[in-house]
Amino acid sequence: MTTLNERLAWRYATKKYDATKTVPAEKLERIIEAVRLAPTSSGLQPFELFVVSNADVRAKIRTVAWDQAQITDCSHLLIFAAWDDITPDRVNMMFDLTNDVRGLKNEGWENYRQQLLGIVAARGTEANYQAAARQAYIGLGAALIAAAFEEVDATPMEGFDPEAVDEILDLKSKNLRSVVILPLGYRATEGDWLVNLKKVRRSRDSFITEIK
Amino acid sequence: MTTLNERLAWRYATKKYDATKTVPAEKLERIIEAVRLAPTSSGLQPFELFVVSNADVRAKIRTVAWDQAQITDCSHLLIFAAWDDITPDRVNMMFDLTNDVRGLKNEGWENYRQQLLGIVAARGTEANYQAAARQAYIGLGAALIAAAFEEVDATPMEGFDPEAVDEILDLKSKNLRSVVILPLGYRATEGDWLVNLKKVRRSRDSFITEIK
Repeated sequence: MTTLNERLAWRYATKKYDATKTVPAEKLERIIEAVRLAPTSSGLQPFELFVVSNADVRAKIRTVAWDQAQITDCSHLLIFAAWDDITPDRVNMMFDLTNDVRGLKNEGWENYRQQLLGIVAARGTEANYQAAARQAYIGLGAALIAAAFEEVDATPMEGFDPEAVDEILDLKSKNLRSVVILPLGYRATEGDWLVNLKKVRRSRDSFITEIK
Repeated sequence: MTTLNERLAWRYATKKYDATKTVPAEKLERIIEAVRLAPTSSGLQPFELFVVSNADVRAKIRTVAWDQAQITDCSHLLIFAAWDDITPDRVNMMFDLTNDVRGLKNEGWENYRQQLLGIVAARGTEANYQAAARQAYIGLGAALIAAAFEEVDATPMEGFDPEAVDEILDLKSKNLRSVVILPLGYRATEGDWLVNLKKVRRSRDSFITEIK
């Protein structure tokens, strides 16, 4: 098996998918599971994941996403949708679930629940949404890496109208907001202008500072 | 080699580190490299990574981070610091670097540069910072997963005063803002209340929606 960094070097933001190829169910399942297992702040998992294979829905999303062909040519489209607020109900749902799963209740955890309820109330809706959106990006990172291990191509995309996507998927009624989308599938090497170009990253020196 | 999801199941937010153990240089290097290789929106890499082993600096950071012992007991402390704005200079730096590395200039890419310069100018400093911070969380996801593959423990932390950390590391002069920190090291199983508790995640049904 190849190493993580070999997989990261292999992957790239695929520009052209082979529309005839489908990601096998077991690979898709492992990618989704990586997102579900990804850690989040206070364990809240303040986002949900939509897995769209439906052609009509993808065609609609493409019209509000700069007409990017990957959205309809890929095998499955992942949509990361963050909580529009971190409400007391949502905090309590996760803290209660934690007590259920672990079969215990402890004072430290219950004190932390109260502290967190105070923090999110003070912070307000917009800052809570921003905090939730950041957590969704941990999930995005996990999905990207999981896809690379499955030898599945992926294209992280912010180039879409989030409000229009929210409308198409009826996210508002679920108190969610779309933050980033990820086509998954198989590259069509022939038509992809990026596939043979070098990956560009800043040098270690200009990206990393060691304080010893 | 174990699979990604086995590694994600193994990892947890370590509460107690063995202060006598150090992450070997080659493992640390691979974790850092995963962050550097992680993808970001438009390839901007709009953040930097600080790797702090210095004891005095870590002691100072601990005082502005709820006195969390992991900060001083861990082996190395990673600090993800996002660009405080996405300025034209920074956009041009990355687009110029891309042209240098690939040894070519093309019209599509240059048009995209102009489009992106327009977007970040219209969006303004605060929204640009928020966008940069989200990208740092992709890097955080990569670091977490890379650490798990190296069998290195890690604790993602947002519980610190970002402005105080910026001051300690003089980030303002570099036009950076700290967004999340990650102690790396080895768990001290004896003193860790979390190590034997079950991992809690919402069920697949309440986290994933398939649109077929």
